[in-house]
Amino acid sequence: MPGEVNRDATCLFCRIVAGEVPATVVAEDERTLAFLDINPASDGHALVVPKAHAADLGAADPEDVAATARAAQALGARMRERLGADGVNVLTAWGEAAWQTVFHLHWHVIPRYAGDEARDRLRLPWTPSPGDPAVLASVAARLTAP
Amino acid sequence: MPGEVNRDATCLFCRIVAGEVPATVVAEDERTLAFLDINPASDGHALVVPKAHAADLGAADPEDVAATARAAQALGARMRERLGADGVNVLTAWGEAAWQTVFHLHWHVIPRYAGDEARDRLRLPWTPSPGDPAVLASVAARLTAP
Repeated sequence: MPGEVNRDATCLFCRIVAGEVPATVVAEDERTLAFLDINPASDGHALVVPKAHAADLGAADPEDVAATARAAQALGARMRERLGADGVNVLTAWGEAAWQTVFHLHWHVIPRYAGDEARDRLRLPWTPSPGDPAVLASVAARLTAP
Repeated sequence: MPGEVNRDATCLFCRIVAGEVPATVVAEDERTLAFLDINPASDGHALVVPKAHAADLGAADPEDVAATARAAQALGARMRERLGADGVNVLTAWGEAAWQTVFHLHWHVIPRYAGDEARDRLRLPWTPSPGDPAVLASVAARLTAP
């Protein structure tokens, strides 16, 4: 399969998909691979990637976006069953401004353990508070303009 | 369309899909709706939901997971074009332990603005640091056991 898909020889995750760089693989299907993050935010934190190279969410074939999202859903379910996780966060970072550091689309699939700080090192990334109505209206107008 | 899909009359997001509760809609397709988060983490922060009710990522039809992920991709591209975002984070919370507060699957689509703290209030939710090799091995064994 790796030989059949588009790849970038300099890309770390393409090299993992090709088996040239070791990784702890935890799931695989025709279009996707999942392996453990070596800098885990919680015990079991894994990454789901498309086998075909795409630098980020914007560059990916929508079919690979769909396939990786479904794979993240299935892996999350397995984390709840097998690891006893109480919840799961699924997150992707598109662009350096969004904390992306490896430029091959990946979804972080992060099992959560309620109240267990030894296994779960995540913090809420923002504090919900009401938005400015004028900003909300301006943003919506720009997003929906023809 | 709302009348054709599975819905929960007590669910806030089903009521938004049905037009019974107002929301600032920014995108829509056959299976999905996107509207602004009223407690935005950054200017333009929106939610993408399936029109059919599903309490969370685990409960959703995989086709709705795929459709919402593709819709998040398209909306993220529009945020870069129309709002001048430098990056985008896409995140879902599955379960209270993962910060879920509304129990209808939703993807946060959060435009990012590099270095602009007035428009962008997100903080990195974890500090990457190497995982314990024994924990990584144990987790992988449990996730991949037949």
